[in-house]
Amino acid sequence: MKDLTKIILSEKELPSAWYNIIPDLPRPLDPLLSPRTLQPATPDELIPLFPPDLLQQEVSMENWIDIPGEVIDIYKQYRPTPMFRARRLEKVLDTPAKIYYKYEGVSPAGSHKPNTAIAQAYYNKVAGTKRLATETGAGQWGSALALACQLMGLECTVYMVKASYDQKPYRKMLMHTWGADVTASPSNETECGRKVLAEDPDCPGSLGIAISEAVEDAATDENARYSLGSVLNHVLMHQTVIGLECQKQMAMVEDYPDVIYGCVGGGSSFGGIALPFAKDKMTGKNVRLVAVEPTACPTLTKGIYAYDYGDSVGIGPVAKMYTLGHNFIPAPIHAGGLRYHGDSPLLCSLYDQGIVEAIAYHQIPVFEAAVTFARSEGIVPAPEAAHAIRAAIDDALECKEAGEEKTILFNLTGHGHFDLSAYEAYFNGKLEDYEYPEEKIKEALTHLPQV
Amino acid sequence: MKDLTKIILSEKELPSAWYNIIPDLPRPLDPLLSPRTLQPATPDELIPLFPPDLLQQEVSMENWIDIPGEVIDIYKQYRPTPMFRARRLEKVLDTPAKIYYKYEGVSPAGSHKPNTAIAQAYYNKVAGTKRLATETGAGQWGSALALACQLMGLECTVYMVKASYDQKPYRKMLMHTWGADVTASPSNETECGRKVLAEDPDCPGSLGIAISEAVEDAATDENARYSLGSVLNHVLMHQTVIGLECQKQMAMVEDYPDVIYGCVGGGSSFGGIALPFAKDKMTGKNVRLVAVEPTACPTLTKGIYAYDYGDSVGIGPVAKMYTLGHNFIPAPIHAGGLRYHGDSPLLCSLYDQGIVEAIAYHQIPVFEAAVTFARSEGIVPAPEAAHAIRAAIDDALECKEAGEEKTILFNLTGHGHFDLSAYEAYFNGKLEDYEYPEEKIKEALTHLPQV
Repeated sequence: MKDLTKIILSEKELPSAWYNIIPDLPRPLDPLLSPRTLQPATPDELIPLFPPDLLQQEVSMENWIDIPGEVIDIYKQYRPTPMFRARRLEKVLDTPAKIYYKYEGVSPAGSHKPNTAIAQAYYNKVAGTKRLATETGAGQWGSALALACQLMGLECTVYMVKASYDQKPYRKMLMHTWGADVTASPSNETECGRKVLAEDPDCPGSLGIAISEAVEDAATDENARYSLGSVLNHVLMHQTVIGLECQKQMAMVEDYPDVIYGCVGGGSSFGGIALPFAKDKMTGKNVRLVAVEPTACPTLTKGIYAYDYGDSVGIGPVAKMYTLGHNFIPAPIHAGGLRYHGDSPLLCSLYDQGIVEAIAYHQIPVFEAAVTFARSEGIVPAPEAAHAIRAAIDDALECKEAGEEKTILFNLTGHGHFDLSAYEAYFNGKLEDYEYPEEKIKEALTHLPQV
Repeated sequence: MKDLTKIILSEKELPSAWYNIIPDLPRPLDPLLSPRTLQPATPDELIPLFPPDLLQQEVSMENWIDIPGEVIDIYKQYRPTPMFRARRLEKVLDTPAKIYYKYEGVSPAGSHKPNTAIAQAYYNKVAGTKRLATETGAGQWGSALALACQLMGLECTVYMVKASYDQKPYRKMLMHTWGADVTASPSNETECGRKVLAEDPDCPGSLGIAISEAVEDAATDENARYSLGSVLNHVLMHQTVIGLECQKQMAMVEDYPDVIYGCVGGGSSFGGIALPFAKDKMTGKNVRLVAVEPTACPTLTKGIYAYDYGDSVGIGPVAKMYTLGHNFIPAPIHAGGLRYHGDSPLLCSLYDQGIVEAIAYHQIPVFEAAVTFARSEGIVPAPEAAHAIRAAIDDALECKEAGEEKTILFNLTGHGHFDLSAYEAYFNGKLEDYEYPEEKIKEALTHLPQV
């Protein structure tokens, strides 16, 4: 089996439980705080936003959480996802390294996001929630939740960052096809949105603002709850099906990664592939786990490790994380999913403890890597995922210099079918590189909550 | 294994040979004619357009043609493709029928088209061709050939029907990403194009006109050849990997289809799934093979079985087929891939002999079926493929009335990621139904070549 190119598992080999790393952490996680009191958030404060099962998972000390049958049934529509040996890319790079990639773009929504969307919709249905409200940047998360709500019989309201709402009409249409309501954020539908618009009527929006709107919407309607596509512990845990499958697929080809690359916005796709391997690492395995982020939003590589608001307006939970400041408005890079001011607290803790590493790339070399990949492996990657490709290619090229037969694995979190205008801009020389200025980071310090 | 939802084969089970039905036909096929002499086309006339291996395959009397290793290596990037049991759709329809679908949308180009594009690019590379010229309607075929040429190291020129070129910018960008040149047709690049533009400067183009341009381009450049994405025998033969995999997948779940539905434009996806089963049928198996076409382009259901030009200007080979007349300009339905005036001569012969059946649908009920499918199975289908879904759903609903446990299989030839504006038009009540008028068919008779 060592010579396989497409490494697939039968549906019988779908993981039956998610892996929860929390009990295995060398240092306990700092608790979420209430935005009102800045004291540890009580269940009472969170229950209007999240159903009991998800709150339980957020703090669970069980290592394995069974995946409900109804969730498994929907996973089967696209899981297990394939892992590929990138033979044609290896040949183009003329590298002795072996490059593998896990491909999550086979889901109907085109990314890894349904892994948690389906689970969240399920637990909400069980809890009697009628409608879920959420935010979306480029639209990957919003479309995943629209799909999941449709399949679970829930209504879905998506606050979509206005810049993307205008630039990516196809993502909006996809959400409509799955029956969701989509509103450009900042909107006049919420107090948070009206507040932002009053200050800046032309505000292009940000993920932080859209989160504020969705949280307010859910908190003020007893039939609705809120759903977050990344950052939280339970979200990363649902995504561990990615890494659990990778472990089986690597075993099929009798190999094991020396290094794993994944892009990081809020941390869910990276956590999904990395956490099961982080367990291996903490028990002695030699595997590097490298988070790849854009220089335009260098949360891990240049941010501050501190308590900050998860949303821009400051009505959502406060988390200890690397942050660029909750009032961060990102440069308009095309990797919309990587423009969040913070990062998963779990991932940040692993980074702080040296279990996870991080690097940052500019967007033009990222698109260059994306095109090299599309022209060798065929698949057109999402700009977010292309960050991991850039890192994998650079590593493989270093292996060529050093004559090293390293095993590289990266997470191809989604396809770029809805990002082709970014490719066209790249071909037409219209992309710009952005560096997040040091002085802005210093300035951000002054806006952190005083915990 | 009978309870599988996602029925997958390992890459080791990829078919090693294509099935050629020609030797098994009860009646030999009528030969292609030269457009100049209207006598059987000689190899000399065809060699500027097609490489020797493909001309050989076009008339081969071998039942099985080995798939070259280099083609298999690329097939492995997405093949074998999954077959799904549509359990959620069955539940929504509340039908006792079992519905299966073969999903070809997992290819990097998003449809079945790479199955032949990769083979054609390979045989052209072997023959020393430097560049391939082709036409594309909605862009499915053009993007598949762009991908295949990129992977085989050939240049690629695509003449894209102008209406689609303007309406579907993402398909054009996809071809650019894979390195192809894309020209709106009719263009000023060819004599054929200039002739059409002289008569009608605002001509929206047609597949027939784009074929004329691509054929002229290839015929007038000794380094270039022409590539056709459907209609010809060798194209349908390359697509038989679809049906051959389906036979193995059906055996895995210990089932066999009572009926197979596939959409038909030129006939390649339908031929691909149906021909291996047609062999079963000709040797006594009880399976219905039903081609589904749009009422706006009812080639099989309302056309004439006669020799006609394959292209609009009359410079390409002349074939015996069901036709609506080579000067047919289709109504602007969104299933761009089903707007061809003719059909595969092989498929037409099977239809004429009663081995294949045909039905036609209006576009609004087709989109209604597409949305039902997207909201139950998740995948957003291409409008072409949705014709088969409509037929499968109608059959399943009849089974509900009759209490019949029929096994239905259909070919989901591609996803609709680049067709979402058509879905949006459907939701906004802006789609129209079109019936091709009887008097136009009669008029078409007067333009057929006098063979």
